[in-house]
Amino acid sequence: MGDLKLLASHRSVGQMVPFRGEELPIQELANDAFHGVDVAFFSAGASRSKEFAPFALDAGAIVVDNSSAFRMNPEVPLVVPEVNGSTVNPEKKLYSVPNCSAIILLVGVYPLFSLGKVERLIVSTYQSASGGGAGMMKRLLDETRNELGYGEELPPNASFPPYAFNLFSHNTAIDENGQNEEEAKVVQEARKITGLGDLRINVTCVRVPVLRAHTETVTIEFEGKAPELDAVRNCLAGAPGVELVDDREHNQFPTPKLASGKDTVLVGRIRNDLSNPNAISLMVAGDQLLKGAALTGVQIAELAFNLAK
Amino acid sequence: MGDLKLLASHRSVGQMVPFRGEELPIQELANDAFHGVDVAFFSAGASRSKEFAPFALDAGAIVVDNSSAFRMNPEVPLVVPEVNGSTVNPEKKLYSVPNCSAIILLVGVYPLFSLGKVERLIVSTYQSASGGGAGMMKRLLDETRNELGYGEELPPNASFPPYAFNLFSHNTAIDENGQNEEEAKVVQEARKITGLGDLRINVTCVRVPVLRAHTETVTIEFEGKAPELDAVRNCLAGAPGVELVDDREHNQFPTPKLASGKDTVLVGRIRNDLSNPNAISLMVAGDQLLKGAALTGVQIAELAFNLAK
Repeated sequence: MGDLKLLASHRSVGQMVPFRGEELPIQELANDAFHGVDVAFFSAGASRSKEFAPFALDAGAIVVDNSSAFRMNPEVPLVVPEVNGSTVNPEKKLYSVPNCSAIILLVGVYPLFSLGKVERLIVSTYQSASGGGAGMMKRLLDETRNELGYGEELPPNASFPPYAFNLFSHNTAIDENGQNEEEAKVVQEARKITGLGDLRINVTCVRVPVLRAHTETVTIEFEGKAPELDAVRNCLAGAPGVELVDDREHNQFPTPKLASGKDTVLVGRIRNDLSNPNAISLMVAGDQLLKGAALTGVQIAELAFNLAK
Repeated sequence: MGDLKLLASHRSVGQMVPFRGEELPIQELANDAFHGVDVAFFSAGASRSKEFAPFALDAGAIVVDNSSAFRMNPEVPLVVPEVNGSTVNPEKKLYSVPNCSAIILLVGVYPLFSLGKVERLIVSTYQSASGGGAGMMKRLLDETRNELGYGEELPPNASFPPYAFNLFSHNTAIDENGQNEEEAKVVQEARKITGLGDLRINVTCVRVPVLRAHTETVTIEFEGKAPELDAVRNCLAGAPGVELVDDREHNQFPTPKLASGKDTVLVGRIRNDLSNPNAISLMVAGDQLLKGAALTGVQIAELAFNLAK
């Protein structure tokens, strides 16, 4: 690949960003900034994507958008390469990177869809602060310092409940069905990515005082009797992007610290659902900054760029 | 009530404990220590309870045991007063306090068993460090200080994974079914307490870096169509020991910090399970040091003592 061009709002123009031993200047995001760009990554929120992605497309770039702007647009592939990489095709120039919780869920669970017809997923998330951005991570750290007696008094925070040594239902708006926005994204996006428009998903999204990597407990209900656990483990052990962490004897299972910095989604605690012979339960953990966002975006770009060559 | 007698092993003998403005000395736990005791609370682990509860019973005391020693003994009532307080009766002198996760789950959910036949519960826990004792709380605090750059180097800990800003599957032994001990307790004890020997429960128990109070996400599947949400809220609003925290507009739902120090179990995030018309989902949070242990023990003792008078 050739050059990297960094675009942001005028407030950041002129700042230098280290990249592979060089310092690259931030330039201003403008309508005419995309000439000569082969692949444009957008990760500045949905409104920025909606405004500027058309200019990047007009300039001939492949656009990989990390925001929610185009995810549910039926014309735009929503891609988890391990699940529906085949939706990347030379006809398409615009791609969406799914929500982090949906990516981590599907990389860990979708391989099992080959073992039987999956009827329903029941998911509880344990989501880290980094999913809420640098500001939320800083708030968690500042509050924790404060609670341990080291920090200074903090300004009040109206965006979410106290976070140090606490947890809370995902702080996004609740719709008329009682779902918060994060939960609605997981359901809608998982259906679009798997192509299973009637996939039934119950999900509760919760923020926990973890800095990085999301964990999820998952129960998978099949139409008929659940597959044998050996078949489940074999399937997952050979699945792309999956790493089994499933040592009952030493109580070693997926944790956010184990997942942090890794490209893989960790899967473990695999067991029969003792309340339903058609179901199994397990845990997944993945780094939502990597596989849950940036890494998946880069994988999509590579697929699309290689097809376009 | 009269006097308080504090019993512990010889290592603690002579230490003074503040109680209602007095300082009370710790005396040695011995076979003959229970003469004149009306009510004996045991909270020193199952082996201590098994060894010494018989002497307390022989001395005529009502025994309320907070350990797992007698919980599944069919002769011993396992009591959540709000659920099966009627099992306290003058014939019985020995009572068990259930596991904290089971108590908090049932106080929040059992009222709904009056609205229809419940077939299955699907639970994920977010359990705090205090459930693992003072040592686990200290470890969480020490590791967190360390990670923030304030603490000293810590000795290694083989009992559970790194805890600061991390979470992990409950660090108890896994049985041949893949359940850990905490999960098996929740299932067995909930069946005994509700008297529903075939109640189907799927539970995943997870420790989160919270100091106090357990949170649980719960999906409740009924035999037929789930009750209307208004009926659910009305039922819970009038239920003993329950406090509704269910404000969708302001995104106010149960959290461990809200539950800490409270005698009630908080219930909220009440909504239809969009994946199953027969089910609803909700969250509960309760202080496992109070309602999950000591408070429930005291409530049982009061019931039993008043009956015995």
